[in-house]
Amino acid sequence: VQEFTVNFKGLSKTIKAPKGSDLLAAAIRAGLILNTACGGEGLCGKCRVIVKKGNIRDERSKFINDRDRKKGFVLACQTLIEGDLEVEVPKESLEVHEKIKHESEEFTKGIILKREDGFKFSPFVRKFYVELPPPTLDDNVSDLERIGRELKGSLDKVMLSAKLANVKHLSEVIRESDFKITVVVGYRDGELEMLTVEPGDTTKANYGFAFDIGTTTVVGQLIDLNTKNILGTRIAFNRQSVYGSDVITRIIYGSEPKGLDELNEAVISNISEIIEDLVSANKVNLSDVYVISYAGNMTMMHLLLKIDPTNIRKAPYVPTTTVFPIMHSSGLGIEVSPKGISSFLPGVSTYIGGDIVGGVLACGLYENDEISLLADIGTNGEIVLGNKEWMIGAAASAGPAFEGSGLSFGMKAVRGAIEKVKIDENLNIELGTIGPDKPKGICGSGYIDLLCQMLKRGIITKDGKMNRGIKSGRVRKGAANYEFVVAFKNESSIGKDIIINEDDIENLKRSKGAIYSAIIALLNKVEKKLGDVKKIYIAGGFGNYLNIENAIFIGLLPDADRDVYEFVGNSSLAGARMALLSHEAFEKTNEIYKNITYVDLGSEPNYMDEYIAALFFPHTDLGRFPSVRL
Amino acid sequence: VQEFTVNFKGLSKTIKAPKGSDLLAAAIRAGLILNTACGGEGLCGKCRVIVKKGNIRDERSKFINDRDRKKGFVLACQTLIEGDLEVEVPKESLEVHEKIKHESEEFTKGIILKREDGFKFSPFVRKFYVELPPPTLDDNVSDLERIGRELKGSLDKVMLSAKLANVKHLSEVIRESDFKITVVVGYRDGELEMLTVEPGDTTKANYGFAFDIGTTTVVGQLIDLNTKNILGTRIAFNRQSVYGSDVITRIIYGSEPKGLDELNEAVISNISEIIEDLVSANKVNLSDVYVISYAGNMTMMHLLLKIDPTNIRKAPYVPTTTVFPIMHSSGLGIEVSPKGISSFLPGVSTYIGGDIVGGVLACGLYENDEISLLADIGTNGEIVLGNKEWMIGAAASAGPAFEGSGLSFGMKAVRGAIEKVKIDENLNIELGTIGPDKPKGICGSGYIDLLCQMLKRGIITKDGKMNRGIKSGRVRKGAANYEFVVAFKNESSIGKDIIINEDDIENLKRSKGAIYSAIIALLNKVEKKLGDVKKIYIAGGFGNYLNIENAIFIGLLPDADRDVYEFVGNSSLAGARMALLSHEAFEKTNEIYKNITYVDLGSEPNYMDEYIAALFFPHTDLGRFPSVRL
Repeated sequence: VQEFTVNFKGLSKTIKAPKGSDLLAAAIRAGLILNTACGGEGLCGKCRVIVKKGNIRDERSKFINDRDRKKGFVLACQTLIEGDLEVEVPKESLEVHEKIKHESEEFTKGIILKREDGFKFSPFVRKFYVELPPPTLDDNVSDLERIGRELKGSLDKVMLSAKLANVKHLSEVIRESDFKITVVVGYRDGELEMLTVEPGDTTKANYGFAFDIGTTTVVGQLIDLNTKNILGTRIAFNRQSVYGSDVITRIIYGSEPKGLDELNEAVISNISEIIEDLVSANKVNLSDVYVISYAGNMTMMHLLLKIDPTNIRKAPYVPTTTVFPIMHSSGLGIEVSPKGISSFLPGVSTYIGGDIVGGVLACGLYENDEISLLADIGTNGEIVLGNKEWMIGAAASAGPAFEGSGLSFGMKAVRGAIEKVKIDENLNIELGTIGPDKPKGICGSGYIDLLCQMLKRGIITKDGKMNRGIKSGRVRKGAANYEFVVAFKNESSIGKDIIINEDDIENLKRSKGAIYSAIIALLNKVEKKLGDVKKIYIAGGFGNYLNIENAIFIGLLPDADRDVYEFVGNSSLAGARMALLSHEAFEKTNEIYKNITYVDLGSEPNYMDEYIAALFFPHTDLGRFPSVRL
Repeated sequence: VQEFTVNFKGLSKTIKAPKGSDLLAAAIRAGLILNTACGGEGLCGKCRVIVKKGNIRDERSKFINDRDRKKGFVLACQTLIEGDLEVEVPKESLEVHEKIKHESEEFTKGIILKREDGFKFSPFVRKFYVELPPPTLDDNVSDLERIGRELKGSLDKVMLSAKLANVKHLSEVIRESDFKITVVVGYRDGELEMLTVEPGDTTKANYGFAFDIGTTTVVGQLIDLNTKNILGTRIAFNRQSVYGSDVITRIIYGSEPKGLDELNEAVISNISEIIEDLVSANKVNLSDVYVISYAGNMTMMHLLLKIDPTNIRKAPYVPTTTVFPIMHSSGLGIEVSPKGISSFLPGVSTYIGGDIVGGVLACGLYENDEISLLADIGTNGEIVLGNKEWMIGAAASAGPAFEGSGLSFGMKAVRGAIEKVKIDENLNIELGTIGPDKPKGICGSGYIDLLCQMLKRGIITKDGKMNRGIKSGRVRKGAANYEFVVAFKNESSIGKDIIINEDDIENLKRSKGAIYSAIIALLNKVEKKLGDVKKIYIAGGFGNYLNIENAIFIGLLPDADRDVYEFVGNSSLAGARMALLSHEAFEKTNEIYKNITYVDLGSEPNYMDEYIAALFFPHTDLGRFPSVRL
């Protein structure tokens, strides 16, 4: 294939790209991380760049007006390279990590701290300051044994192992620091391991990261391992989205060796930047970060660890492994302390990964006497039902709509997102937006409110079509199909109307139908009724801003007693953090994953009927939603 | 410092060397391994090279006759570089690995096989052929779990861990081989670990190496891990000798970072070449070698693993560690299977290393009801005394004389070595030489015989001086001092007389005195008498060719009942092999090393007196040697 040179002006980055490849991929290979909220599908309009010179072929986009178009503005993801190019990247197109919404973070923390008390505080990596008695002729045990002897009092069990690389210069470090040292001890496969020795007393500086690696978003938290305090949280769209918005596309791409490398590099760059961002914001030294605890779905874990994912997507859907050894962070290409370690929550199967096991740990479902249910609403909707005696789990192909992806104005629940919507009888709209700014888009909880309100006011029908009879400037025929204006140009911060159209509604309807029918199918499987479920934990990006009443109103969640519902936020992240703070909690996940039986919904006789019946708001069978009055 | 170019002609190797550095070091840096039986001290005359051009400064050596000298012959170790040089290296000066004497190898094997029966055959690495049931929708556990499930029947305990690198391409390998695979399982810290998976049935090809890393010699054995058969044994002088013949010199050298690298590279090259030599001689694929088991003294282990050895030689003589984790062989720079692992026998202290712990394992001293003693006569003489309830150990600075080093004609017990000597009343000599050739030199057991016979025939006196009154062409004043001709030029294969001189005898006397007095000091320490010792195991390079009677006659060994003595050969190597063949045996060494109490002879009140009293043949106190009649 012919190759062209792409010169990203002002950033002094030049790369070669094959003819016909897209400009977004070229930018990524050049190390430029453009905003790609929609995953490179031309839907979000955020990867705007200016082609200064050279031949391109591009799709005309509604996000570029004529004036900008004349200046050379294009969407990088919709532009194919047809010659040597000079490209300018406006600052606003470069991705910035967004601080996750403060309240939501605190909320998650509250839930988890309650649960964390159930486990002994014993972080994956601990530091112990010791003043060793200097050796004498009568006491000349080896340096390593001297340290082990001194630590016995501090540890529950003797330090049993030490990797060779960690002892090579031990003798020098100990003597140069006059036998006053801080021993960094890690937990690995049931044993404690000396990771390294630092001169003097450095116990005060001990930090770790918890990460949730989602298909759509990557979330990281910096934790002080002395105080358990969360020092900060960052969320970013998973850059693998450029190679496909769902796991299937990514697995296909990752089945080629180079593809696997690229997907791996994409998520590693996400993680690295979140780490850099949080350590610099908190004035923490990278070298004081000794541990990272990861949770994620099975595909994400395979891609993160560069394990061939090919067979995950081929029937009978076999992952290479569902458990992952503790390893050095540096082995992943992550720059923290070179002696730092990483751990990964184990999963059940291809469709129930460590993110869900983490969620079960975080909400405590596995130890409840009575039956409870966890619904994690992310790119897929994973459901676990059970109690301390049994657990079954399933995954619904819900798509990433509730994570704000794949919708005209979808976004994460971050600053500028519409998260609450009220529409009065006169179709006046009251919006609740995260932060002080005017809105930029709509997050998952905002969409649920919006659908509910549109249904209540008759703007859309039970099957999700726009009511053509409504007389309102907000309802109109748009570029694609009928649309409803949520915020007019002057009310938004992006210089254009924020709308929802029938495609968006269809998308949301399928998502909610998939989740609801999965819940019902699992109940059917064990011959239980909704009333038998004493707790329904709702996890996902919603934070505590999902309006349960509204979610039931649209038929996303079943019409159970309202006090059965409890929000647990990003429970995957919470599980990763619990494991980080207590290796007892980590060990518990090894029990949990073995006790969850995976149910393949495709093989359940009634699942498809349930799904089709759920493709209405709230449902074809209104008898199931007695509290809903349209 | 000024640098010169040294061009090794015909070998197309050219390097830069600083002015005044020696030619042997330059050759080694150029990758040429010259014979250096004496460790680069000008004593063996084996590193002959021809300087064709350029300025040198050299010591005139008795090993170079005038004719050769005119041709440019010099000893590389005694030649300093004073200008750009052209050097030719005769083929006979390049080191060749020598096969260890067949009988001695067999002997060791006999001793050990008797003991090996005490441990379950469970080599460090095992191979299991499995035909996995292909996954189905009803049975779609992960690939790793599928393997673990299938192996459960074959293993005592479930395979618990697998390193990430070993699972990355698992899914592909399994499917390409149609689910018929050989699983290579290694033992690590009490757990079994999947090292890799090979397509098809490869169980027949499973090999390991046992190594004894001595200060003077490196010995390796290739073992078939299916049959326990020893396929071959090779012995080589430790190339670190170039940097110093004893551990102290090497530690000083190794305390500089570059020095540590060089010492490490030297021994790694020894090991690598022995491995290459044995696999090619036995038509074994390197990739089928999955495990290496090492035993060696504490300094050798530090240098092998590139652990800073500085504090081993400084009071209070503290090693960095006396136990070493199991690691990947590739991490040491050894080329066998990239997934192969290496294990190291643990030691007690700076002076009682894994070689001695291996010896205690091999001879079984640790489980005897009655008191027994192990004397390992190598570069040092290490002694362990005890029974199943207690053990004490000490090291005597015996020097490498009995390993054939540091003596005018000393050599290893290999082909061409005089190993037996008889002298009749007329001073006629009958020599027993290893192999069919004429003798080249004298090995340890040969020297013991020789000393004994010289004493008996009055050729030397009790204090080791040559009897000037003897009328014989064999006794003469030599270059250094008085010497005795063991084999005349025409009886030797090296074109010159093989002699022993008074320096050699002094050297041997100190060695034997150090060992004897260490044995007595340990007995005194626990207030036992020689008669309390029911077994004395003799280990070292002697094989079964040490004449006990003669060793007692010269005062090397105490005058105990002869049936108390048992030869165990290279018991360090035997211990390494036992660990290789049974990880139960390896685990046992972790008990043994903890149960041996180290005794510092220097702090023992009577040791120095004992040593001085032992500097006679056999001893100043003849009452201690009632069976010896001079």
